[in-house]
Amino acid sequence: MLTIKRLDIDDAHSIIAAARAKATELDVQVCIAVSDESGNLIAFERMNNTKPTSVNLAIDKSFTAAGVKKGTDALGEVSQPGKPAYGLSSTLGGRMVVIAGGLPVLVDDEVVGSIGVSAGSPAQDHEIAEAGVRAFTENQK
Amino acid sequence: MLTIKRLDIDDAHSIIAAARAKATELDVQVCIAVSDESGNLIAFERMNNTKPTSVNLAIDKSFTAAGVKKGTDALGEVSQPGKPAYGLSSTLGGRMVVIAGGLPVLVDDEVVGSIGVSAGSPAQDHEIAEAGVRAFTENQK
Amino acid sequence: MLTIKRLDIDDAHSIIAAARAKATELDVQVCIAVSDESGNLIAFERMNNTKPTSVNLAIDKSFTAAGVKKGTDALGEVSQPGKPAYGLSSTLGGRMVVIAGGLPVLVDDEVVGSIGVSAGSPAQDHEIAEAGVRAFTENQK
Amino acid sequence: MLTIKRLDIDDAHSIIAAARAKATELDVQVCIAVSDESGNLIAFERMNNTKPTSVNLAIDKSFTAAGVKKGTDALGEVSQPGKPAYGLSSTLGGRMVVIAGGLPVLVDDEVVGSIGVSAGSPAQDHEIAEAGVRAFTENQK
Repeated sequence: MLTIKRLDIDDAHSIIAAARAKATELDVQVCIAVSDESGNLIAFERMNNTKPTSVNLAIDKSFTAAGVKKGTDALGEVSQPGKPAYGLSSTLGGRMVVIAGGLPVLVDDEVVGSIGVSAGSPAQDHEIAEAGVRAFTENQK
Repeated sequence: MLTIKRLDIDDAHSIIAAARAKATELDVQVCIAVSDESGNLIAFERMNNTKPTSVNLAIDKSFTAAGVKKGTDALGEVSQPGKPAYGLSSTLGGRMVVIAGGLPVLVDDEVVGSIGVSAGSPAQDHEIAEAGVRAFTENQK
Repeated sequence: MLTIKRLDIDDAHSIIAAARAKATELDVQVCIAVSDESGNLIAFERMNNTKPTSVNLAIDKSFTAAGVKKGTDALGEVSQPGKPAYGLSSTLGGRMVVIAGGLPVLVDDEVVGSIGVSAGSPAQDHEIAEAGVRAFTENQK
Repeated sequence: MLTIKRLDIDDAHSIIAAARAKATELDVQVCIAVSDESGNLIAFERMNNTKPTSVNLAIDKSFTAAGVKKGTDALGEVSQPGKPAYGLSSTLGGRMVVIAGGLPVLVDDEVVGSIGVSAGSPAQDHEIAEAGVRAFTENQK
């Protein structure tokens, strides 16, 4: 029998709030998704006037980060032409996203959920996702 | 050129908060989605320990209610066997949901967004969605 | 070798114009799609302020009518529970629509294209589609 | 509450007419799609004898340009191997198109819709899309 640790809805709200604060600081409007360790969405928020295609991109980045247990930025590196995971981005009907902005949330080295951010540059999305994860991790101490 | 009114993120949060309060009152854990008038998701929340299949059911109920500009319960009636819209439930790749729990949000008789609720009974989901819409409508006065 | 007759873009525009005129007469805003005999879209028009979910419903009704070489209303009858084609509506990833509003366009008893209409009641959509087909047929004489 | 500006059907017809005129000038047969700011199709036209696969390519280019609020040609640059958005082209079930030919339509720096063109070379599709946007923009003055 397994015992699984999973973000609850309050954790998800805290992560989104911290990510939103960072997005506001960077002056960029984004979509922010938090999923559980199984890749199922817990909470989502679209800031006003952001890109409509970012709705599912943010959800799919969080799905991917929970699913592969690493940041989506790491997938971008290993799936370049000539690299071992080349072709990864079109798997799972295209839900596997290999662009920065998705990060797993870890507790005791286990994935308990994830965050996905979209609509800024990949670097901005990554920084916003990091702010969400950091708020959770510091809160756990 | 058309001018369209659309729920913003604060509206979406208020609607979700009112729906969540009703769900808590009914002692049922649900997923709650708020979409804009075009069917794109604005905000989403999954209460703890609810059904994972309800994530997309709630999102698709809100997509449907915005898209058809009426409650998903009304679609259930007209799509019964022998009725004119029989077969509706499998259209749009199955995103068209004809089960109660999705409602449009109206301002001056125009759709500005929608709410979708899933995981309770259809009657509960409908009641929870109504609570979300009512909070918004009363707030507008 | 086969020789195929197919609606051209001018035919499609005439069909849409006649359908739009009927929709205006009925005071209903609809989406109107015209496809070729292979089910590929030739032309499409969404009247202002109509239902966003009707975009793909209209396209899929024209796809269906071209594909099965009969009106989508006829499919509704044969796919009722207990009838031989029960289950038809969920085939082809849900693109097979069994609700009135799709009609083939015939020349010398051969399908040369189709029209699909959505957003009114199924009866209205059917009447609007008929007006589109009639304009083409009378024009051929 | 947000207030959104959106192309209406007359705007869409004007944009398509200007794009068609440019395609005729270039002696290339294309598909032309105009979508609203949320990515939902408003109008579509397929010129005679063009490529059937271009139907959805044109629709998806307009979906993409509205969704990301920039030209699809810009996406091609940032999603090359080694670039930050590598892998973008397979997201959203493949509806995200990173090939030139999709452009947003702007009013006062806000996206009000988009155009997508397919079947010529990417450079031709881009030029045709530009002609569509230009006609609208000049008409607004």
